[in-house]
Amino acid sequence: MDNQTIPLDAETKALEMPEDHRDELRLWLRLLTCSTLIEGEVRRRLRDRFDVTLPRFDLMAQLDKTPEGMTLSDLSKRMMVSNGNLTSLVDRLAASGHIERRVSAIDRRAQIVKLTPAGRMEFRAIAAEHEAWVAEIFGGLSQREQKDLMRLLAKTKLSARNAIMGETQ
Amino acid sequence: MDNQTIPLDAETKALEMPEDHRDELRLWLRLLTCSTLIEGEVRRRLRDRFDVTLPRFDLMAQLDKTPEGMTLSDLSKRMMVSNGNLTSLVDRLAASGHIERRVSAIDRRAQIVKLTPAGRMEFRAIAAEHEAWVAEIFGGLSQREQKDLMRLLAKTKLSARNAIMGETQ
Repeated sequence: MDNQTIPLDAETKALEMPEDHRDELRLWLRLLTCSTLIEGEVRRRLRDRFDVTLPRFDLMAQLDKTPEGMTLSDLSKRMMVSNGNLTSLVDRLAASGHIERRVSAIDRRAQIVKLTPAGRMEFRAIAAEHEAWVAEIFGGLSQREQKDLMRLLAKTKLSARNAIMGETQ
Repeated sequence: MDNQTIPLDAETKALEMPEDHRDELRLWLRLLTCSTLIEGEVRRRLRDRFDVTLPRFDLMAQLDKTPEGMTLSDLSKRMMVSNGNLTSLVDRLAASGHIERRVSAIDRRAQIVKLTPAGRMEFRAIAAEHEAWVAEIFGGLSQREQKDLMRLLAKTKLSARNAIMGETQ
């Protein structure tokens, strides 16, 4: 017997849909679709045009923002890669001369990594292209629409944070 | 010598910023932040409350939409997991009685999977909770704001698709 061939009874329906939240669900799926679509395209262009992975680009972007360098543990907090992957990423960027490592003066167990001048120059060339791609991707929205979207996403971020906080209290 | 201590010269600046697209970049990063935040929370609640992974939930959601069942290859096209992961996911869902498999009448090399009545019932109970979480997460936005966000994300999706199409032509 197939569930689909008999109409759901009222009780099952009530259990399934205590209130109708289909609009919010559609909103979330659309947000996710946009994010997945754009991230996929950025990832593809980074790979095809610069032979750079997204985690490598993200790591260099983090270091570009902190010219004095960062400890590995701070880096790992800001990036969404595992510690093992981060270490091998750092090893490869050091081997290719993009970053340099030194022992922290404050904590000799901690390693500080920073971009080399060559690493910084290469990152910024890629970052400029990356920024142009993103502008192209959002190019179908007017200035006004971009501004509205920015404001609504700020609200969404706050609303999501509140839901998460309420949850973990 | 630290790059940060000397101002960038005009040429470097021009290379770096042919046009200023910082607004679009901020927009993209905010969209990505929202998406990552919400996905992480949904993933956490599915795990904590139902001991269900997001790929498992997504697979059941795909099957719930197609009561007649789907071939493994159609399933893999709609989901963002590798074929190997999909096969092991399907094996586990079959072992726990949530789905059933049969050979396709059209193509005997193809396997068709569908939810069992018990699998469907369990999925729908989780899906109702999931929908309520999403409504809570977007709860800080008024109906009007949700509608506006929906419309702007539709434009974003279209704009991203156009950028991707232009790229691959």
